[in-house]
Amino acid sequence: MKVIADVSIVPLGVGVSLSKYVAECEKIFAEAGLKTSLHAYGTNLEGEWEAVFAAIKKCHERLHEMGVPRISTNLRLGTRVDRPQSMEDKVRSVQEKLGSS
Amino acid sequence: MKVIADVSIVPLGVGVSLSKYVAECEKIFAEAGLKTSLHAYGTNLEGEWEAVFAAIKKCHERLHEMGVPRISTNLRLGTRVDRPQSMEDKVRSVQEKLGSS
Amino acid sequence: MKVIADVSIVPLGVGVSLSKYVAECEKIFAEAGLKTSLHAYGTNLEGEWEAVFAAIKKCHERLHEMGVPRISTNLRLGTRVDRPQSMEDKVRSVQEKLGSS
Amino acid sequence: MKVIADVSIVPLGVGVSLSKYVAECEKIFAEAGLKTSLHAYGTNLEGEWEAVFAAIKKCHERLHEMGVPRISTNLRLGTRVDRPQSMEDKVRSVQEKLGSS
Repeated sequence: MKVIADVSIVPLGVGVSLSKYVAECEKIFAEAGLKTSLHAYGTNLEGEWEAVFAAIKKCHERLHEMGVPRISTNLRLGTRVDRPQSMEDKVRSVQEKLGSS
Repeated sequence: MKVIADVSIVPLGVGVSLSKYVAECEKIFAEAGLKTSLHAYGTNLEGEWEAVFAAIKKCHERLHEMGVPRISTNLRLGTRVDRPQSMEDKVRSVQEKLGSS
Repeated sequence: MKVIADVSIVPLGVGVSLSKYVAECEKIFAEAGLKTSLHAYGTNLEGEWEAVFAAIKKCHERLHEMGVPRISTNLRLGTRVDRPQSMEDKVRSVQEKLGSS
Repeated sequence: MKVIADVSIVPLGVGVSLSKYVAECEKIFAEAGLKTSLHAYGTNLEGEWEAVFAAIKKCHERLHEMGVPRISTNLRLGTRVDRPQSMEDKVRSVQEKLGSS
């Protein structure tokens, strides 16, 4: 089962500068072979269900190893069985509607 | 690694009455041995990481089998390594502050 | 326009104990006359759109006044025009499906 | 109070093709003068609190006028008072950490 997800990881108890931790998870997502796209409030992920969730778990584990005592993650998670769809398809589909208006 | 999560599952392409699908996932969560608590915009879950995510995957699979073509799930996901904490601890901790004010 | 919402407010830069801040927002929500229900990963809110968002804004402002430098809030937000629905209706509707199975 | 937000709007009861509705909200966000950036699972928004929430409300109202009976929106919402920060700052800050590793 393929998943398109969007993950926003919020480390708690380490102050207000979080980019170091976000970058660490970006590396983990890339090493896992996922398609990723960073934006200003999270990261798009695309891959097989097992691979996506193994990478998110590894991200939590790594941050705790780095000394983060608590993490609150927000995740959007889409699956569909009617037709295949990629991250690029989703963006293009909206842009086509905008272009034709 | 223990997780406290909150999951809101939104089936798409099956109209506006979603409670049948939410109920199906509630059964899956209970059968998985997770601690659960239903509320008006989702379900609290508590358990080991692997058990929580296996149950959420099973919920997506079951709904697709029931004919749901597309699902968009929103998930909050908390882990902490500084001290153990249950769902009840979290609620009680807020209520104590409210009671003492 | 009536809204059923679910809000999870995460103060950053103030350590890992957040219940004091959550409690402060609970008071604001109650003072605003909203229907509220606290759970282990957020708070259900029900009310008119303007009242709900004025209360959430006031919560952010109050926490910043209390010294919280940064806040990351996650919000689920439902509106419907096909029929009226309360927080209790949503929970009951799922429970009925569970009871009859 | 300035806000960086990320909004994922999910219309219910109108089938599985949602890009028409997402495009409509994109236009509303742009007309409102907000800084916006579309991605595969939502849209980043930056602006003053009042302007951001007026635009999100207008989006719900417009979709209901277009015949959408029910909408479930997921919103991430960040405010900070320690220092100014833009959407571009957030992405750049992570990319710098990735580049230096």
